[in-house]
Amino acid sequence: MMQSEIKTYTENQLLPFWTARTIDKSQGGFITHFDEFGNDAGDDEKSLIAQTRSVFTYSQAYRHGFGGPIMKEMAEHGVKFLLEKMWDDTHGGFYWMTDRAGRPTNKQKIGYGHSFAIYSLSEYTLATGDPIGLEYAEKVFDLLQKHAVDTNYGGYWEFFAEDWSLMGPGAPGGDRKTLDVHMHLMEAFTTLYEASGKSLHRRKLAEVIEILIYKIMHPETGTGIPQFWANWEVAPQIKFDIVWGWDRFADGGQKASSTDNTSYGHNAEFGWLLMHAIKIGQFHLEKYRPHLEKAFYHALNHGIDWEYGGVFVEGSHTGDASDYEKEFWQQAEMLIGMLDAYKLTHDSRFIDAYKQVHRFVFDKMINQQTGEWWPLMTREGEPIWRHMAHNWKINYHNVRSMILSYEKLGELNL
Amino acid sequence: MMQSEIKTYTENQLLPFWTARTIDKSQGGFITHFDEFGNDAGDDEKSLIAQTRSVFTYSQAYRHGFGGPIMKEMAEHGVKFLLEKMWDDTHGGFYWMTDRAGRPTNKQKIGYGHSFAIYSLSEYTLATGDPIGLEYAEKVFDLLQKHAVDTNYGGYWEFFAEDWSLMGPGAPGGDRKTLDVHMHLMEAFTTLYEASGKSLHRRKLAEVIEILIYKIMHPETGTGIPQFWANWEVAPQIKFDIVWGWDRFADGGQKASSTDNTSYGHNAEFGWLLMHAIKIGQFHLEKYRPHLEKAFYHALNHGIDWEYGGVFVEGSHTGDASDYEKEFWQQAEMLIGMLDAYKLTHDSRFIDAYKQVHRFVFDKMINQQTGEWWPLMTREGEPIWRHMAHNWKINYHNVRSMILSYEKLGELNL
Repeated sequence: MMQSEIKTYTENQLLPFWTARTIDKSQGGFITHFDEFGNDAGDDEKSLIAQTRSVFTYSQAYRHGFGGPIMKEMAEHGVKFLLEKMWDDTHGGFYWMTDRAGRPTNKQKIGYGHSFAIYSLSEYTLATGDPIGLEYAEKVFDLLQKHAVDTNYGGYWEFFAEDWSLMGPGAPGGDRKTLDVHMHLMEAFTTLYEASGKSLHRRKLAEVIEILIYKIMHPETGTGIPQFWANWEVAPQIKFDIVWGWDRFADGGQKASSTDNTSYGHNAEFGWLLMHAIKIGQFHLEKYRPHLEKAFYHALNHGIDWEYGGVFVEGSHTGDASDYEKEFWQQAEMLIGMLDAYKLTHDSRFIDAYKQVHRFVFDKMINQQTGEWWPLMTREGEPIWRHMAHNWKINYHNVRSMILSYEKLGELNL
Repeated sequence: MMQSEIKTYTENQLLPFWTARTIDKSQGGFITHFDEFGNDAGDDEKSLIAQTRSVFTYSQAYRHGFGGPIMKEMAEHGVKFLLEKMWDDTHGGFYWMTDRAGRPTNKQKIGYGHSFAIYSLSEYTLATGDPIGLEYAEKVFDLLQKHAVDTNYGGYWEFFAEDWSLMGPGAPGGDRKTLDVHMHLMEAFTTLYEASGKSLHRRKLAEVIEILIYKIMHPETGTGIPQFWANWEVAPQIKFDIVWGWDRFADGGQKASSTDNTSYGHNAEFGWLLMHAIKIGQFHLEKYRPHLEKAFYHALNHGIDWEYGGVFVEGSHTGDASDYEKEFWQQAEMLIGMLDAYKLTHDSRFIDAYKQVHRFVFDKMINQQTGEWWPLMTREGEPIWRHMAHNWKINYHNVRSMILSYEKLGELNL
């Protein structure tokens, strides 16, 4: 029942929202800004994140048998724009932002965007067999190894100028390491290794897992700490000049609770991405079980809204939620995470949690007028923000969640 | 007087030893095995270390006005062999060993050898203006960033198979990090940055300095600790399958004092290489002064043989020498180190120490029959080993020492 609900919705509402309007036939790539009614919002921007995530979405859908042959065509269309318009022939790597015509408007090299380049281009090759995706994914991997690694304390820097020189401290971001980028590098290296089979990619995947587990996750609670200094001491969470989503900062660019802040959806996403990495890399699940269980149980015990359904935005590492609103991507990641948590623990409360989120998504979060999700809702499920898509809200989270939840529900006979 | 002694000896005895016999006219590259009398010892080997160090020697001599125009020709001759015979077109990087004809006999990729490839090829471009040296130095730098870095704990792995996959644990060396390689990477990145002027090379130089100071040097004594596990805990000093010099291990391949063992010559070399890196990279000398002083004073107080002259092989971090013999390369490095220590501290005892080593070299270590140095002598100065050159004893240490001591004595008006 939940499975067929997902399949019907994804095939008949969610994917059709995109196939009807995202392809930019005149200028290449994808249009990714749509208002409440699904009309083109007109923003003259194409972002590396939105273009790569779109390529991932259509590639993954094609590989998993969702959406039909047009998914392959859309993925090809997206890769063409990435390689022809967003690739920097001079310095290597992808520009951060172009206008709709594909003229670069921000040539900075951003780690977050490059993790999605690796992820999407690898998925594209896995889905279509076209080797060009993996070829460029490996180029990006090599560039990150050369420019982004801190060879002293380990881990990856994230914010670079056009020529890959490291940005300065503070808001430009050159003195901080983040949970976000390391988690997405794990995600990217997993799919890169799946596509390449190269031992180097598996080794770097193993290393980034160790960083996440032993440096980035809170040792007691298993929750993710957002930002660190070079030496892995916890840094106050600030807003960077280059952003990719969240914007609920106080004036001055620092969070009210700048050091005790964790996202349930992010922790659940970390958990399932780690389980997937362990499976693809054939690593030792039991080594990481305690960390996985901490993260999943924290999300279960503090993040689920048992009254209104869904998952809260964020809260304290040791206590309860501090922001009770409901954001689109945390719902998506929580669905997959709770199913994997059940697979890991056989604790049926995770199925109950899944259902709380599933119902919230299908009863509240889907804007039935368009088929896409509202970006941010009140705790009770009233829309706060109303756009259907922009650079930082594209279909990567919810399409992936629908596909993987569908498959995992099937595996679990739910 | 000491200056002219050096100049006369280097121009009339030391460099002529090499120009007379090292060039392999028929098969390219350099012959680097000579017996006590300077006769070709016949070993059918050309090692990456000996070939690259030779290129460094002749390039440096040419840049510093020693040895005349033939130095340039010899450097070019050496680079030709490196690029035509030792470069691995399939996997990138240089083979570890070939026979005299240039046929690879060990295709492993070894970090130590690649640090010398970067060093010598950069010096070659600085000396001659030929860009091919820097081009390949950068290729090697990129390969090390891609394959050799431990992105979790920081630092560089050193032992790789032909295809750059990391070797296994123990004697193959894949589970250990060493002082040696990190010190020689500092040396290499300094000259690479001098040649390229690229901020990336300066950044990686800064990082490897931090590794050396805060992870590899003993925090109290400032002495170098030879081997570490991945997480920078001190590892017992073992003998690797791939060696590049020392061979005074007990049966079973572990040193008698496997965790309390430091080389005075190596520490003095570290000190002057660091001072050179600080100068080229325009880093902050005062930040590192305490570390430099610890290393130099330890060598001064425990390593100098005030009775017979010269510097002992090695000893304890906190106490005195345990091996009183006199090996060629420690003498060479101590000369430069003591002059730089005097420059740093203005403590005249370093000049006294310099003189102790200088006299030992000129009165005992030089084999006057050939012009080259004995490899290993008793404390009193009787030859123990008698070969003039092999893979692990080439002219890099003593020619460099003569050139730099000559220049530093001049700067100090000594």
